Amino acid sequence: MSTVTLAGESLLSGLRPEARNAPESGIVEVVNHGRLKEGLIPLWVGEGDLPTPDFIARAANASLTAGETFYTWQRGIPDLREALARYHTTLYGQPFAMDRFFITGSGMQAVQIVVRMITGPGDEVVIPTPAWPNVAAAIGIGGAIPVNVPMDYVQGRFSLDLDRLAAAITPKTRAIAINSPANPTGWTATKDELAAILALARKHGVWIIADEIYARFVYDGSARAASFHDIMDENDRVLFVQTFSKNWAMTGWRIGWIEAPPAFGQVIENLIQYSTSGSPVFVQRAAIAALEEGEPFVAEQIARAKEGRRIIAEGLKATNRVTLSPPDGAFYQFFSVDGREDSRALAIELVDTANVGLAPGTAFGPGGETGLRLCFARKSSDLVEVVARLQRALSG
Amino acid sequence: MSTVTLAGESLLSGLRPEARNAPESGIVEVVNHGRLKEGLIPLWVGEGDLPTPDFIARAANASLTAGETFYTWQRGIPDLREALARYHTTLYGQPFAMDRFFITGSGMQAVQIVVRMITGPGDEVVIPTPAWPNVAAAIGIGGAIPVNVPMDYVQGRFSLDLDRLAAAITPKTRAIAINSPANPTGWTATKDELAAILALARKHGVWIIADEIYARFVYDGSARAASFHDIMDENDRVLFVQTFSKNWAMTGWRIGWIEAPPAFGQVIENLIQYSTSGSPVFVQRAAIAALEEGEPFVAEQIARAKEGRRIIAEGLKATNRVTLSPPDGAFYQFFSVDGREDSRALAIELVDTANVGLAPGTAFGPGGETGLRLCFARKSSDLVEVVARLQRALSG
Repeated sequence: MSTVTLAGESLLSGLRPEARNAPESGIVEVVNHGRLKEGLIPLWVGEGDLPTPDFIARAANASLTAGETFYTWQRGIPDLREALARYHTTLYGQPFAMDRFFITGSGMQAVQIVVRMITGPGDEVVIPTPAWPNVAAAIGIGGAIPVNVPMDYVQGRFSLDLDRLAAAITPKTRAIAINSPANPTGWTATKDELAAILALARKHGVWIIADEIYARFVYDGSARAASFHDIMDENDRVLFVQTFSKNWAMTGWRIGWIEAPPAFGQVIENLIQYSTSGSPVFVQRAAIAALEEGEPFVAEQIARAKEGRRIIAEGLKATNRVTLSPPDGAFYQFFSVDGREDSRALAIELVDTANVGLAPGTAFGPGGETGLRLCFARKSSDLVEVVARLQRALSG
Repeated sequence: MSTVTLAGESLLSGLRPEARNAPESGIVEVVNHGRLKEGLIPLWVGEGDLPTPDFIARAANASLTAGETFYTWQRGIPDLREALARYHTTLYGQPFAMDRFFITGSGMQAVQIVVRMITGPGDEVVIPTPAWPNVAAAIGIGGAIPVNVPMDYVQGRFSLDLDRLAAAITPKTRAIAINSPANPTGWTATKDELAAILALARKHGVWIIADEIYARFVYDGSARAASFHDIMDENDRVLFVQTFSKNWAMTGWRIGWIEAPPAFGQVIENLIQYSTSGSPVFVQRAAIAALEEGEPFVAEQIARAKEGRRIIAEGLKATNRVTLSPPDGAFYQFFSVDGREDSRALAIELVDTANVGLAPGTAFGPGGETGLRLCFARKSSDLVEVVARLQRALSG
C-alpha cells in the first residue's frame, strides 16, 4: 500500500501546479461525512428534490427513438438557439437574435469557456464573496487570480459595497464576476447597482461575467430579478453564463448556454470543439421542450421555493439561536448560529446531531465563514422536519 | 453592418490570444462548401452511418423514466466504472480495477483534462502527423506547443521513424501523443514499436497520451491492436483517452473516459468538477449497456468496416489515378490522387464534380497535405456508389 502511495505521489508531483492545486469542494468533505447516514435530509447542494418533468424527458426519448445520435452543430442546434432567443425576448421584453446564444455542456462549461476566452496567467478577476466556488476555481485552473471582495454581512443580510468593488480593480483586472441573485447569499442586485457595476466595467474596459441563473427565483412578486439586459448595450463587454439546471430541474442533464456578442461565435465554437465537441441532440431537444412548455413547471418551482423560504426563515428564527434574513432571490437560506463561528465544524456536527446536511460557509470564500447554507427548494414536509430537527439540535 | 463588425472586431481584440487563435477545423471549410448539396455522400467526418443501437438508447430511456436526473459522482457512477474495469479485463487479458477509470463528457474532454494536467505555457508535446487535429488544438489552447513529427508516406503507406520521434524530444517536452490505430493514416503500431516509444518516454521522464480508441478496428483477424497495456507497468506515465463514440456508434452522446493511475483520482475529479461537473446518469446507463451487451454490435461494425475498406481500396485502385495502401486499423482510407498535390482544392472540387464529401489532408498537419481522408464506416451500397462517382470524376 505504501509503495503504491509513494509511486502515486511521485506521479502526482509531475502534474501542472494549476491542475494539482485545483481545490476540492468544501462541501464534499461534509457530504462525505454524512453520505451514508440513514434518514439524513440533504440540503447541502444546489438542487431541488423534484426530478425533471416528464414532458422534458419524453422529448429526449423521442429524439433517441428517432435516431438523433450523431454529431451535430458545435454551437448547438438552430432550433434550440432560436427557442432561447424567443425565451429571452419574452422574459426581458426586448428582441434577441439566435446568434447571441451558444449551447454548452452545463453552466459550468459556459463558465469555463468564458474564463478561457478572457483570462490567462497573471490576470485578475474580481468576485464578490461568499460565492459559488467553481468560478474562482475555473479562473485558477487557467492561471489567473480570483480577487475576492467580501460582502458586508449584517443581521444576516448581505450587501455589496460598490466602493470596495471599485477599489479591487487594478491594471491586471480583466473581469468582474457578478452572480445575482446570488448563491449562497441570496443577494439580488437592484437595477441601480447593476448600472453602477456596468459603469465601472465600462470605465476600466473590463468584462462582466454575468451569472443570472437564479433570475426567476425572486420573492417580491416580480417575474424576474433585475438584469444586465435591462441596462446594457448589445456590444457591452458582458458575457452571460447560463444553465437549464435550476428552472427546469435538469441538474443531471449537463446543459447550459453562453450569451455573448455574435462576433464571438467562431471563437466560442472552436473552444467548444476542443473541450467537449458539442452537446447531444436529444438533450437539446429536451431543452427546447423545457423552454417552450416549461412555464407552468417554473411557476410551480418558484411557488414551492417561496413556501420553503417561509418555513425555513420562520422556523429558524423561532430557535432564538440563529441570525438570518430571508433572501431576496435564489433558493438558499444563509444563516449563522449565535456563538458558533466555525461553520465547518458546525456543519459536520449537525450531520451527527440533527441528521441534516448543510453546506459550511467556509466553502464559499471570505465573508461567510461563520454561516451555513441551506437549500430550500424542497417539499414542505421535509423542510418542516428539518426545522424541527435543527430546533432540537440547537437547543441542546 | 460595418458598424457592428467594427464593434465586434473591437470586442474580439480583447480576447486571450490562445482562445482567439484556436484553429477552425480544416474539415469544416469543405463541409460548409457541400453541406446543402443534394445527394452528397458525406465521408468527411469520423462517424459511421448507423444510429446508436436500440438496446443502448433504451437503457437511457429507462433511466430517464426512473427519474435519474440529478447530480451524480463527478468521476462517473460506480456501476459504469466497474463495467469499464470488466471490459478492460476481458479485452486486455489482465486484471483492471475500477479506480483507474474516470468518466468524461466525450473523448475530447478526456484529452482536454489530460492536457490540462500535464502541460502548460512553454511546454512541448510531440505528435506524429498527420493526426486528428483536436489534440494539438487543445494543447495550444492551454498555452503549450504541439511539436509535429511528420510520418513517412511511401506508396500510400505511413510509417513512424522512431529516430525522428526521439530527436523531437527536448528538455521542454512533457508528453508524446500516440494514436494507434491512427486517424487519419490507419497506421497501427506493433507491440515492438509501442515498447520503443514507452522506453523513450521512460528515458526522458515524459508522459504518453495514448489514444487507442480505434483498437477494435483492425483487419488482420486479431481481436484488437497492440496496446500500451501489453507492455506497461501500472505506474508508467501513460494516460489513456477514450470514447464510446466509435465502437458503439455513440458519437452524438458525448461520453468517454480517462484511464489513469488511481493516485490521480482527486485531481481528475476536480478538473471534471470545474469543466462540466460530470456526465448525465442516463447517458452513463446507456454506456453500461454498450459495454455489457454491445459485443455483437461491435463485431457487426468491424465486419462492415472491413467490407467497406475492401470496396474502397479495390475501387480506388481501379481508377489508376490513385495511390493508396489499405489501412491496418481505424476506419479511414487515406489516399493521394496522382498529379494532384493540393488536397484542399481537390476536396472542394470533388464536392462539386463527384458529390462526395472527403476531408483534405491539410486538416491533419504536416505529412499528409497531398492526400484525402475517406471514412468507410458506411453501408456497402453507398461506398460502391462513391467509388463509381470518384472513378468518373477522376477520369474526367
